This record gives sequence, C-alpha cells and structure tokens, in this order.
Amino acid sequence: MTLGEKAALFRKLHQGPAILRICNVWDGASARIVERAGFPAVATGSAGVAFALGYPDTEALPLEEMLGQVRRITRVVSVPVTADLMAGYEDVERTAAGLVQAGGVGLNMEDYQGGRLVDGPVQQEKIRAVRRTGDRLGVPIVINARCDIFLEQIGEAATRFDRTVERLRAYRDAGADCLFVPGVRDEETIVRLVREVRFPLNMLAGPGTPAVARLEQLGVARVSLGSGPMRATMALMRGIAEEFRDAGTYTRMLASTIPYADANELMR
Amino acid sequence: MTLGEKAALFRKLHQGPAILRICNVWDGASARIVERAGFPAVATGSAGVAFALGYPDTEALPLEEMLGQVRRITRVVSVPVTADLMAGYEDVERTAAGLVQAGGVGLNMEDYQGGRLVDGPVQQEKIRAVRRTGDRLGVPIVINARCDIFLEQIGEAATRFDRTVERLRAYRDAGADCLFVPGVRDEETIVRLVREVRFPLNMLAGPGTPAVARLEQLGVARVSLGSGPMRATMALMRGIAEEFRDAGTYTRMLASTIPYADANELMR
Repeated sequence: MTLGEKAALFRKLHQGPAILRICNVWDGASARIVERAGFPAVATGSAGVAFALGYPDTEALPLEEMLGQVRRITRVVSVPVTADLMAGYEDVERTAAGLVQAGGVGLNMEDYQGGRLVDGPVQQEKIRAVRRTGDRLGVPIVINARCDIFLEQIGEAATRFDRTVERLRAYRDAGADCLFVPGVRDEETIVRLVREVRFPLNMLAGPGTPAVARLEQLGVARVSLGSGPMRATMALMRGIAEEFRDAGTYTRMLASTIPYADANELMR
Repeated sequence: MTLGEKAALFRKLHQGPAILRICNVWDGASARIVERAGFPAVATGSAGVAFALGYPDTEALPLEEMLGQVRRITRVVSVPVTADLMAGYEDVERTAAGLVQAGGVGLNMEDYQGGRLVDGPVQQEKIRAVRRTGDRLGVPIVINARCDIFLEQIGEAATRFDRTVERLRAYRDAGADCLFVPGVRDEETIVRLVREVRFPLNMLAGPGTPAVARLEQLGVARVSLGSGPMRATMALMRGIAEEFRDAGTYTRMLASTIPYADANELMR
C-alpha cells in the first residue's frame, strides 16, 4: 500500500459508522502491541514519545528526534501511522514533509504554542500549509486539528465553548479532517460540540470520560488515549523499582508479563 | 564527575558489602524513574532497548541505534550508566569506543553470538580489547562478562557447571570486573558458583530467584532484572489495548498512573 492509499484509508476511518479507537503508542514495542491487537491505525502521543526520548512534553524535544521515533514505528507496523506533532514546530511545511518522509500519513496539530494560543487565522494558515505539503508530496495527510482552550482553561469559563466552536469551524474550513478537543469529558459538552460542529470529532479519554460505546452513541468519530497508556506503564515501572529497592522482591515484575520468547516473536 | 570517575564509582559498587541492585531500563523515561528511585547506577537491558527500538533481541538491532539509546539515557541521568551490548557486535573495540562516546562507563558482554558459543580464548581476547579501548580513552570500563551456557542450555546438563566455571575464571583472568550467569536461579548452584569463582557475581532475577536479601547472604555481588520490567510494561500495554478494544473502557489505564504534570516534571 502506498502512503497515499494509507492516508485515504485512515481518513475513511473517521467517517463512521463505527467510532475510531486510537490506542496511542510511543515506541516500537507499544506500536507492535497495538497493531497485533487489531487496531486499524497506530498513533503516537507527543508526551509518550517525548518521555521515552528523555524530554518533557514540549517542543524542546527536537523535531528530528520526534520524527526518528515516528520512523521507528512506521518501520515495524503496516497499518497507517499518525503522529502527534504538538503545534507543528516552527516551520509547519518542513514538519509535514518530515512526517511523510518518516512514513506517517496523519498528524495532530494543536493551537497552543510557547505558552499561548495561536491566533485563529495563523492556525488556519498552518492547516492549509500541511494540506499543501501533503498535496505536493502526493499524500493526503489526515489532519487532526486540536483546540486547547478547554485543556489549558484559557479565558473565562463561560466563553470557552463558543470560542472553541468558532475555532473548530475555522479549522474545518481550512481543511482539517477531524477536530480534537482535549479537556472535555462531560456528556453535555460533548453533545453540544457534536451538534454545533457537525464534523468528525476526537475526544481524549481520561477519568470520567464516557465509555467508547457511549461516545459512539453521542456521535463522536474518534476516541484516543493520549499519554494515558505510557503514564500507566511508567507507574508500573516505578512500582517495580520501588519494590525491588525496598522489599528486594520481584512480585510486580512477574505478576503479569509477556514471556521473553513471545516478546521476541512479537518484535520479529 | 568525569566518565573515568563514574566508571571507578560504578566498579566500587561491585565490591560490597551491600549487593548492587540493577533495575534495568530501556528508554529515557524508565532511566529517569530508576534514578529518581535512588538507584546508584542505571543499566540498559538489550532486549528492552531492542523492543523499544522495534527489533527482536539480537544484533540485528544496528549498533548505532543501540548506542543512540544509550546516549538518550546518559543525557538524562547523572549516575553511572552501563549498557548491555550483547556479544559486542563485530568489532568490539569500535563498540567499546562507541559506548564511551555515548557516555556509558560499563557494559555487559555475552559469549553467545550468532547462535553459537564463542570460543573461550576468543572471548578472553574480546574482554582484553574492551579493557584496552577503555584505557586508551581514559575510562576504566566496567566489564560484566556473561556466560550463556546455562541460559542457552548448551551441552550436557551434567557438565554445564564445570564448563561455566572454567569460562568465568578465564573471563576474570582476562580483566572482567564482574561475572554474569543468567539462567541460574537455584540456591545450590548459586552457592557453588560463589565458592568456585570467588569474584563478583551477577544473578538475573526471574521466577524462583531468591529475594535480594538472600542473594546478598549467599555472596552474590549484583542482581539485575534484565528484560523483566520492560516485558511487564508491555503486558500492561497489551492489557490496556485489549480492554479498550473489547470492553471500550479505560480501567487498567487509569488504575495506577503517574499524573501528566508529574510525568512532565519527572522528565524536566
């Protein structure tokens, strides 16, 4: 399958009828696990990738390092791969070209950069630039345009919904394929977003988020886990280390594991 | 602290009186977690690193990729870092130089390569070559020489112990700092190894291995976890993915986690 075909396939997964489940990954092993579990696409989360590479979740993570990890992942899975590229770094055309070169066919791009919300028209132009770059390279990149007003709790609470909807519509009009609103978990707001935007919507699952079946009923097109899986594995690693340090035992390490031979086979 | 000083510090940790606990890591996040938990050194495991980078646990993992991961880890921790470099790849001097360049001060080197046991004298010469390379670069590399006869169950079972001891003594005489015998877990064999070798011994913890305090009583110098922690986190990731796929819920992901802000802070 060409990258162009993978992009088309991935785009189609946003158009129902089933909700698209995205179990975010951060390295070769997690990507293989998710593919082997039958998920139709693999998506990186910026935080997971940054932590794995030794950085906090900011654009302090060099773009080349980020894309290197995308390349490691596309090397080992055959399903479409989409990457969370934060706000797209400085030069979004270069970033999008790097994504395609790394074998990716989709990206998440947020509208919060360097501690402030990017101006709406500037963000629209960035979305158009990704689209142009994809067209030039023959890969119709799937653009998941993210609005961070709820996540970062920007501006007066009472105005967040309207300002988010205004931005989402603008991103849709600029050529986004899906609209992502992390920080929203309550059914009422989700229902209102679906109604106001009438376009594929991505929700981020966290404590209190409705289960997948309910999100599907509400009309959500895509649900992702963000850094949740990576942070859970980090907590397990911390627990293993602390038990080894304090009790000098290996209970948590051995309680639930993938045998060495099976793990090796998984990565072949 | 210079690399030479870190190597000296790490070597000293093998000389008691306390047993050295090695909680093996594979990426930036796991390395930071282990350092933050107070461990005096950080060690990679070849399988964990290979899986993270998208490879099975063999020298099919390019040396440059392996050393790139060592570099990511040494960038984010200040304690000494030792790397599991399998059988040292083709040119062990180049491998050892690459290790030092990546900021590492110790290595594990096994005597099983390409599906067969390396001849004893050849393995001795490889150990001497690592030592020479370290001396040339001003870093007294801590060499953990591994014998795989038990792990790979090579030759008649009744002769394994004697053949292992013969090799361990040869590796010790060639300049190793510690001798590693994965595949041995029973107290009787451990006691006999300690008695016959009279040199720092490393045991790999797995199902049935005595607890750390007991290993210390038996005279073991170092206990490591190998790919155990990585394989446990892979099992958790698989469980999260399968629950998300089948039940459409997030219970395992949320049950025990490091909050986003804390994870970010950990990596700063």
